[in-house]
Amino acid sequence: MPRLIALDWGTSSQRAWLLGEGGLVLAVRRRAVGLLGAVGDDPTSRTRHYEAAFDEICGDWLAADPDLPAIACGMVGSSRGWREASYLTVPTDLAIRATDLTAVSHPRGVVHLVPGVRVAPAADGTVPGDVMRGEETQIIGILGLHPPTECPLIIVLPGTHSKWTRVENNEIVSFATSLAGEMYGLTLEHGILSRTATAGVRNDAAFERGLAIGGSVPSRGLLTELFGARALVLDGLLDPASVPDYVSGVIIADEVRHLLPEYSTEGRILLCGNADLCRRYAIALHVHGVGTETVAEEAAAQGLWQVAITAGLVRSAPHTTPVKEIR
Amino acid sequence: MPRLIALDWGTSSQRAWLLGEGGLVLAVRRRAVGLLGAVGDDPTSRTRHYEAAFDEICGDWLAADPDLPAIACGMVGSSRGWREASYLTVPTDLAIRATDLTAVSHPRGVVHLVPGVRVAPAADGTVPGDVMRGEETQIIGILGLHPPTECPLIIVLPGTHSKWTRVENNEIVSFATSLAGEMYGLTLEHGILSRTATAGVRNDAAFERGLAIGGSVPSRGLLTELFGARALVLDGLLDPASVPDYVSGVIIADEVRHLLPEYSTEGRILLCGNADLCRRYAIALHVHGVGTETVAEEAAAQGLWQVAITAGLVRSAPHTTPVKEIR
Repeated sequence: MPRLIALDWGTSSQRAWLLGEGGLVLAVRRRAVGLLGAVGDDPTSRTRHYEAAFDEICGDWLAADPDLPAIACGMVGSSRGWREASYLTVPTDLAIRATDLTAVSHPRGVVHLVPGVRVAPAADGTVPGDVMRGEETQIIGILGLHPPTECPLIIVLPGTHSKWTRVENNEIVSFATSLAGEMYGLTLEHGILSRTATAGVRNDAAFERGLAIGGSVPSRGLLTELFGARALVLDGLLDPASVPDYVSGVIIADEVRHLLPEYSTEGRILLCGNADLCRRYAIALHVHGVGTETVAEEAAAQGLWQVAITAGLVRSAPHTTPVKEIR
Repeated sequence: MPRLIALDWGTSSQRAWLLGEGGLVLAVRRRAVGLLGAVGDDPTSRTRHYEAAFDEICGDWLAADPDLPAIACGMVGSSRGWREASYLTVPTDLAIRATDLTAVSHPRGVVHLVPGVRVAPAADGTVPGDVMRGEETQIIGILGLHPPTECPLIIVLPGTHSKWTRVENNEIVSFATSLAGEMYGLTLEHGILSRTATAGVRNDAAFERGLAIGGSVPSRGLLTELFGARALVLDGLLDPASVPDYVSGVIIADEVRHLLPEYSTEGRILLCGNADLCRRYAIALHVHGVGTETVAEEAAAQGLWQVAITAGLVRSAPHTTPVKEIR
């Protein structure tokens, strides 16, 4: 029996789950349309756009069961989203309360937006703050699947905007964002390397060469090592089809080199995200002698279920069915 | 009296000079059409495209004086250019000989392409090589205007692909490229910051904040500090119109932090390029306690004249008129 409609609505894609008792996934839908198509400066037309998109992905679920609660996380709650949701500020526990949610009324009912999490900027202005929207829900899901132990847990979520998060005593105590995935896309789609590279053919050796160059000490810097891919191709030392893997290695090595010192720990490092990206990060971290575990990508659905429980949108049944992971 | 047609033909723009005795600039033309529009995989149509572009920018000069020699530097000599010109490999002096030029015949005569310069990759594969096309000619022009002294000279050419070059005893001994300008454009045109920033209003304080963050030690890395601009805007600590200056500071600081250690010297550092960019690099280098001199941007015209002399395309008149710098 359906208990909850759960949405992870990001910048570039939308996922909707129909969840049953215990967070069991009854149905899942994905659309490659995220926030970007919805951006408009007129509030009325923006609202209409979001209402239509919501209806399109899960309106039939709600029509069949009009009392189903609905919850959404991700950039849908950003200033350019459906409605601006609040932020929790680190250090923060992740027991989201009803008052933390932002209710958005729409023709069929109400959607509850999960708050994002922010790092406040340093008081002396030397370190900017940081923000996440959607990843906090994945982290809640991960913590449900991997209950924290005594030692700190580092959760790395690779993606367009990778997040490195430190969790201690069930609280997010700090995190940092890296534009790794965005930089990979921009460089290969719009930069000089778009004219150097050809359609990628997976080449693990090229990825590892990129890793070695991107992690070399002393470093000549990301901006110089990326250009190196072009020189290697011109010298016949790198196949144009292997440029994407090489660039991926250079960028991930640069991210790991800079963020690992701050986030390294004697505790566990969990990777959560696209399987191929997690594999790449595991290799990059292994170069630094750091072991990792990889968790299933569908953490967001479990996180949304968990938030719906703690905020009282749904009540946990007395005999909860075990959560089923899907891929 | 015209003596030479000189072209600096790059990826994104074309400049043509009609030069008289001693390299005196008689006329100059610019077009914002560079290499990109000409890229095509069919050699015949590509050739036709380049011939038409050449004709358009300076065909009338050649029609008026059909025996005028013509010389060109820049990406026009790349593998995607009019014809692939050769490379000199560092260390190399800059006395370009006739045999170093690549002659391209066209309906009105011949254009001579200046060779680029390359750094060979390290034999053990640990450091990729590097390439320049066009900048070598600017450097030749700069050295004509600023004859080298005993000590090494570091010439920094900021731009889409910034070059850091070490000149010793009138030879280029090494150089490195940074994608600084490209990264600035990609980030603000296509990345998440394109949705954070508004049309830039010059804000020197924001530039210096970016410099401080991008140069902080220990560094969280370029990929993280760029995202910081978004967090600052969301926190109301950075005006969206100042994001471009902030990003410029972060990127230039990252470049300087990585390349200055390799290129620092007790000698002189010369900056050559767009005046505003040179100003920014001068400030970024000053943060590291390094003084700089800035030279006029039109070094390419003087470099092309100098190459035409050393390669014997034109003969220096017995009584040379002093070179006149134009801006």
